[in-house]
Amino acid sequence: MTNRITELFDIRYPIVSGGMVWVSGWRLAAAVTAAGGLGLIGAGSMHPEVLREHIAKCREAVAGGTYGVNVPLMYPEIDTLMGIIAEEHVPVVFTSAGSPKKWTAWLHDRGIKVAHVVASSVFAAKCEAAGVDAVVAEGFEAGGHNGREETTTLCLIPAVRRATSLPLIAAGGIATGEAWLAAEALGAEGVQVGTRFALTIESSASDAFKRHCLNLGEGDTKLLLKKLSPTRLAPGAFRDAVERAESEGATPEQLRELLGKGRAKRGIFEGDLAEGELEIGQVAALLRGTDPVSAATVVADLVDTRRAALARLLN
Amino acid sequence: MTNRITELFDIRYPIVSGGMVWVSGWRLAAAVTAAGGLGLIGAGSMHPEVLREHIAKCREAVAGGTYGVNVPLMYPEIDTLMGIIAEEHVPVVFTSAGSPKKWTAWLHDRGIKVAHVVASSVFAAKCEAAGVDAVVAEGFEAGGHNGREETTTLCLIPAVRRATSLPLIAAGGIATGEAWLAAEALGAEGVQVGTRFALTIESSASDAFKRHCLNLGEGDTKLLLKKLSPTRLAPGAFRDAVERAESEGATPEQLRELLGKGRAKRGIFEGDLAEGELEIGQVAALLRGTDPVSAATVVADLVDTRRAALARLLN
Repeated sequence: MTNRITELFDIRYPIVSGGMVWVSGWRLAAAVTAAGGLGLIGAGSMHPEVLREHIAKCREAVAGGTYGVNVPLMYPEIDTLMGIIAEEHVPVVFTSAGSPKKWTAWLHDRGIKVAHVVASSVFAAKCEAAGVDAVVAEGFEAGGHNGREETTTLCLIPAVRRATSLPLIAAGGIATGEAWLAAEALGAEGVQVGTRFALTIESSASDAFKRHCLNLGEGDTKLLLKKLSPTRLAPGAFRDAVERAESEGATPEQLRELLGKGRAKRGIFEGDLAEGELEIGQVAALLRGTDPVSAATVVADLVDTRRAALARLLN
Repeated sequence: MTNRITELFDIRYPIVSGGMVWVSGWRLAAAVTAAGGLGLIGAGSMHPEVLREHIAKCREAVAGGTYGVNVPLMYPEIDTLMGIIAEEHVPVVFTSAGSPKKWTAWLHDRGIKVAHVVASSVFAAKCEAAGVDAVVAEGFEAGGHNGREETTTLCLIPAVRRATSLPLIAAGGIATGEAWLAAEALGAEGVQVGTRFALTIESSASDAFKRHCLNLGEGDTKLLLKKLSPTRLAPGAFRDAVERAESEGATPEQLRELLGKGRAKRGIFEGDLAEGELEIGQVAALLRGTDPVSAATVVADLVDTRRAALARLLN
């Protein structure tokens, strides 16, 4: 299984684990890299010095394997963060939630490969102009923060494939080899898997969060907070309050006040299922009733089920 | 290309044209059937005697080929409508927007094959219990009326595939052979294509509607009217008014009043782009800048691009 994504990152399988807040620490990233994928550390929920620690531990654990860091570009201390990433010789950075123009050349000058996450083909074209090495196109079904366009992965991947010749990684709704193969049929060369890795043993999320998300049915996640930043959430008292407020026409200011600070940590990391913000993708419903497994088990299952789906297509 | 869908309906390709209001008259249905797919007449926008006329013309035009009628089960004169379908010996009925229990046995007793449209695996399981011959699973990206769960085609098809052993047709976001192949990778055996056939030469929609929809960008359609019945709409003054009202917390009653009567006819059939209700799928953006082509061209393109995508997967 060799293509532009495996060659770009020198990995065995074109499988990336999403760099998710309060989920993607060094344990998950290292486990995915050790299993042949590309593990990402999620910097969005880490103070700069905490990130440095995670990078050091990940680097040691992967022993030469390729790992990366996901950096949301609205991170408040972004200069410090990028400085640490360069000092620690992180080989790959995935940037998101901002313009790919700002940091790509700077990272390239330091020998760091850059992928950027988009939710539209207009931004994918900007990635190509900015010189990034690969683009991640993430659809409406993805967990957590999400594009305003609400374009689903099925509609987004072909559009991005037309808009750019860059190596293309599909994200949003991909938790099985069948969905991976579907993404390839649409023109993607790799997949970024979020939800399924968020619910593995190595994920930093609390057990309560994992159990909650492994018990969701179809239609249980909802994309809300559209007047602020659209975010896909699992059920809970906080989400009920958001829905009620939005249904009654709450203003952005009212929603900001309702949201407050630190809710994602409270929900995902601390396991407060009532008052926390529970970010997870729609595809969680496909995992219903299962227990957390290791990241290596997930990678092996993705490879196996993709192979089986391909064999089925040929019969 | 033989599978359970082609055998069930005795068609060459497992491609169904959606039975869309103000779009799917006998011309479109007959053209799709003549091209090797299964053409559906959309009864939802027809008075019973108008439907009878469309059935007669379609039957004559297809000369033995299989065609069908889509019946939304909340149709006000449903008994009369079903009576006409039986009298006219329509070979296939697709039911939607209601329980598959009510009419399946009645249609089977008259030798009519039945497929039912669902937006969740819970309803797919009900279809199996009701004895339908095939299930259509339609995702969030589809145009017009839509499920409350907001499950995308990528997440929905695998869930429905697990919930039932019935022949499975994927719908929502499918306008190319790449997406058809993706749906097959996910477990579907056929596809129902709406948007792309709605914008063909044979579609009954107005030229103004077709031109408008062939000029949409990503993010231009939106799923609105969720407090009534979620409906995916293209931009226009009416939609702006709906969005404004919903953003301000409009009640179902206020939305019902704003909607009024006959807006879909006004928008789709009469081409009033300002005040009409413009129902179209998200995938319209992939067709941007093209002109309406014949339904036969669409069928041939779906077959060709599916074959090319499969060849690409094997390399």
